[in-house]
Amino acid sequence: MRALSLDGSGRVSLGEAPVPDTPGECLIRVRAAGICGTDLQMIDGYADYRGVFGHEFVGIVERSPSPADAHWVGRRVVGEINVGCGSCGRCRAGVKEHCEHRTVLGIRERPGSFAEYVSLPAANLHEVPDEVEDRAAVFVEPLAAACRILEQVPIRPGARLAVLGDGRMGILIAQVLRTAADAVTLIGHHDRKLAVARSLGIASMRSGESDGNQFDVVVDATGRADGLAAALTLVRPLGTIVLKSTTHGETAAALWPVVVHEVTVVGSRCGPFAPAIELLAGRSVSVLPLIAGSFALDDHDEAFVAARRELKVLITPDRV
Amino acid sequence: MRALSLDGSGRVSLGEAPVPDTPGECLIRVRAAGICGTDLQMIDGYADYRGVFGHEFVGIVERSPSPADAHWVGRRVVGEINVGCGSCGRCRAGVKEHCEHRTVLGIRERPGSFAEYVSLPAANLHEVPDEVEDRAAVFVEPLAAACRILEQVPIRPGARLAVLGDGRMGILIAQVLRTAADAVTLIGHHDRKLAVARSLGIASMRSGESDGNQFDVVVDATGRADGLAAALTLVRPLGTIVLKSTTHGETAAALWPVVVHEVTVVGSRCGPFAPAIELLAGRSVSVLPLIAGSFALDDHDEAFVAARRELKVLITPDRV
Repeated sequence: MRALSLDGSGRVSLGEAPVPDTPGECLIRVRAAGICGTDLQMIDGYADYRGVFGHEFVGIVERSPSPADAHWVGRRVVGEINVGCGSCGRCRAGVKEHCEHRTVLGIRERPGSFAEYVSLPAANLHEVPDEVEDRAAVFVEPLAAACRILEQVPIRPGARLAVLGDGRMGILIAQVLRTAADAVTLIGHHDRKLAVARSLGIASMRSGESDGNQFDVVVDATGRADGLAAALTLVRPLGTIVLKSTTHGETAAALWPVVVHEVTVVGSRCGPFAPAIELLAGRSVSVLPLIAGSFALDDHDEAFVAARRELKVLITPDRV
Repeated sequence: MRALSLDGSGRVSLGEAPVPDTPGECLIRVRAAGICGTDLQMIDGYADYRGVFGHEFVGIVERSPSPADAHWVGRRVVGEINVGCGSCGRCRAGVKEHCEHRTVLGIRERPGSFAEYVSLPAANLHEVPDEVEDRAAVFVEPLAAACRILEQVPIRPGARLAVLGDGRMGILIAQVLRTAADAVTLIGHHDRKLAVARSLGIASMRSGESDGNQFDVVVDATGRADGLAAALTLVRPLGTIVLKSTTHGETAAALWPVVVHEVTVVGSRCGPFAPAIELLAGRSVSVLPLIAGSFALDDHDEAFVAARRELKVLITPDRV
């Protein structure tokens, strides 16, 4: 099959890769894949990954490993990206996302979704309802990551919330937080992206316009190393900062405000797919306005250039 | 009165200072004061404070502001160090520790306890029971700060806890955590201080001996800028790090493990005096073995040199 690979030096190349054939897993033909901030960071050196990358996708199950899973064949699905060992304490406790021996689709020892096919265990799959079209279904994985925040941080309906970063994750997170509280402010510095957010009904503010120290919860979705420092200027004493973006390398930050203001900083990664699918199906979250374009595998150079500039770019590996 | 002051350039000087005469507050004759890590950091430039410093003390109330507070006169007391404005939302919510306009004994706009007298509102005072001698009572303030952790982080009795840093705060925190869970390990690199901890029944380990990623909760009491990075190597995924020490300046740390392992980082500062006094009165925490010596105000140079080397050094401003 054709697939996009990282060679460990930041080069993306289109080439032939074996169709995945992992025992005990379903084979899924990819209909559309999304380019995520993590993909761009991996190109820049994060995670030191070599191989087929990409982890946001929607596809059709073509083959199941056993009669017990045969009902999946033909279904349109999205897939959780972490595959645990199944036997360690964390897997038994239901947190395969933190299994020490996990593989992660397109990120860690598992070929990803910028390809014609991916392989995943049936337990990772979620059927996509008809009312969620392919282009929207690609957002289930990042939207699940946004939903993770609601699992980790109790949010009062009257809480004042800020999301730092007007990129794709920031706008998804702001929409998810809006389902829990009324006062959500997106803070960024791209007029065009803030305008998209406003068109979705999200209050927005340019970086630097806040008079500081006023938010109960601040989510850092900047993807930048200085995100924590910026969040610390915005959170109230005894408030919470959610760190949502992984950054490559070291961050320099004055940490004394964490102690003096007794701030809680919560790291947040992958989240639950079911509520994310429900939010899309129920139109509580809008994702189509974020999409700048879809590119074929052959046009990957153009796709990744666009992904650094635009809110969301899709790749459609299917030659049909 | 005689008092030790900081001049803003790291110089400590003994001189005459006015006896505090704040309307509405009690006047307390200081019997003993403790040198804290924060005092040493202030000498090194943290908090940019000028004036009489010191904030751990025990003393006798000599004067009360009104007949309603007259019962305090003659009592032996310790005092909470934060004084709020009394009218803002945080003061009304009972968290004067986070009042934006607060003064803090010997740290922020309020003369401290390396002096013959201090002034505090009666509401900040706690009587010291007879079974807690002066030298132990000086530890109430830092012990309260250790108790704060139990207010912030739920601790299961079976939890595996680590305290990073074998200084005065580390040993107090380890003892407080031991009241909540059995498996507490103190991690440091001073054989002499680790031996004191072991003599108090605390399991200890030299830095670098841990095989990593095994603790449910790690408390950073190193007072060093690299404390967070060290704690991140010791905490399990989904675990909690408590930051207990303020450090001057910026810290360089790779923050991606906070996100990838979904770690919660909790800043922790001042704590409740009542449980701290109970722990001392009930002998659940031992503090006398930490004391290396008591110095008169005149011997302040020697005292601060010793405080950088030893676990705890006291200053006794009373000339009697």
